Amino acid sequence: MPLRVGFIGLGIMGKPMARHILESGYPLTVHNRSRAAVDELVALGATAAGSPAEVARATDVVVTCLPDGPDVEAVATGAHGIAEGIGAGSVYVDMSTISPVTTKRVAAAIAAAGATMLDAPVSGGQIGAQNATLAIMVGGDEAAFERVRPLLQTMGKNIVYIGPSGSGQIAKAANQIVVGLTHEAVAEALVLAAKAGVDPARVVQAISGGAARCWALENRAPRLLRRDFQPGFYSSYHLKDLGIALEAAGSVGAVLPATALVRELYRSLVSKGYGKEDHSAVVRIVEDLSQVEVRGGEQA
Amino acid sequence: MPLRVGFIGLGIMGKPMARHILESGYPLTVHNRSRAAVDELVALGATAAGSPAEVARATDVVVTCLPDGPDVEAVATGAHGIAEGIGAGSVYVDMSTISPVTTKRVAAAIAAAGATMLDAPVSGGQIGAQNATLAIMVGGDEAAFERVRPLLQTMGKNIVYIGPSGSGQIAKAANQIVVGLTHEAVAEALVLAAKAGVDPARVVQAISGGAARCWALENRAPRLLRRDFQPGFYSSYHLKDLGIALEAAGSVGAVLPATALVRELYRSLVSKGYGKEDHSAVVRIVEDLSQVEVRGGEQA
Repeated sequence: MPLRVGFIGLGIMGKPMARHILESGYPLTVHNRSRAAVDELVALGATAAGSPAEVARATDVVVTCLPDGPDVEAVATGAHGIAEGIGAGSVYVDMSTISPVTTKRVAAAIAAAGATMLDAPVSGGQIGAQNATLAIMVGGDEAAFERVRPLLQTMGKNIVYIGPSGSGQIAKAANQIVVGLTHEAVAEALVLAAKAGVDPARVVQAISGGAARCWALENRAPRLLRRDFQPGFYSSYHLKDLGIALEAAGSVGAVLPATALVRELYRSLVSKGYGKEDHSAVVRIVEDLSQVEVRGGEQA
Repeated sequence: MPLRVGFIGLGIMGKPMARHILESGYPLTVHNRSRAAVDELVALGATAAGSPAEVARATDVVVTCLPDGPDVEAVATGAHGIAEGIGAGSVYVDMSTISPVTTKRVAAAIAAAGATMLDAPVSGGQIGAQNATLAIMVGGDEAAFERVRPLLQTMGKNIVYIGPSGSGQIAKAANQIVVGLTHEAVAEALVLAAKAGVDPARVVQAISGGAARCWALENRAPRLLRRDFQPGFYSSYHLKDLGIALEAAGSVGAVLPATALVRELYRSLVSKGYGKEDHSAVVRIVEDLSQVEVRGGEQA
């Protein structure tokens, strides 16, 4: 008998993820703050539940995909939360990106209810969720991970077990550090070129093949040169994620000077009203500092 | 009749580059501070000259590959320098990585002698020089570039004309900004993992396929996890190159906060005695700050 699965948080990530689970043949019970996404999945064969506790009561595995730590705490350990309904031996998989500190606190509450929590944050964005090509980084009990691995495989491709509870969130924080810093690196490189009167498009062409090669340069610099900051991934989410990385660093005593600096630049970007632009828009802050705009000379 | 070529600066980069020129059939005249490399190339068919001026007198194109700006100024515009011997219509190609400010000054002196200077810094390191796969970023007169392009093709693969004098150096500075910042990004990500008790090797595995993908993560993180900091590219050279980037930025009014921070971290690395280690060794500074050492659990 297949695992009975619950899914809570049917946003731009969660909805396509839940659909992949459903289409893979798992009986699915769903819950969401707003009703429209629930109706959509019910039309595809899912069952609606009135609360996270109800979802947990009806299923063997509960998955959440929520915006931030406070949302996860409310849904998991608040009134009518998962911890109230989850059965002994069940597994709770949180696929949100939240602080590993919060993760460990929630995991303890789930353990007290006789169940197991895995942290399984994803990378790959909306497109990865739609195409079931997400990278999934998993922390928590390894036997529980093996039990839900086939379920995770309906949503993602590169699924890596990292280590004990919170480790998945640490891996995701590491990911967001590298991504944020490479966006800033590309921004500073192209601002230097633009301010020196050099065509940034030629610089991108010249440096993309060597040791400067990175996802941000390959995938975002060409759009940046056209002033296209359509997300992609919201700047405001990246600001949140760098905050998580620095909170995690603070909690274990890691000192991350460039991450701290880049977080401040994202803070400025978001407070200037660009939170809904792609995270590559951090170039706007370096442009403001340098009083220049980066544009590619030969771009359409 | 093929161009008669001169080459000055037969170091770990220059010597293999000069050999490729010679083996491609160009008559080659060489000069170098120390004699051993000259003898090696003479044995392969090159002619030795007693000074940069003599090299310039005997050739149509003079190439230099030297450690830093002051070396280039001495060789190009000092006593018995290139400017003393270079003929009207000849081309001087400087393949060193130096300040674009210095480049423009030297280019003016070469122009006053009736010749043309191109800045053509390379990326790809010693291995790129040996395999003739260097990336070459060219600034200066475009007609002069077209004239020497076949010569450059004996040494490199991705040869991009960037723009007027100094533009090649700006592109190289942009390259070194991105490379330095990605090494720091990987360092901070892995220090967070290590300090949080998470296996950095699994984190590398989990994040390498997505938006964190970069040359430093793919090519240097696996070595870093084994504490292998064999160069590659010297930290002391990267410190020099970030200084060039910031000098260039200062001269045009670009403000590069993360580059400035990372330069300071490289300064600490070099002053602690790690200048001859690979630039990925910047992780040592983040490790010192965080009192932890990054090691991969499952590495040999």
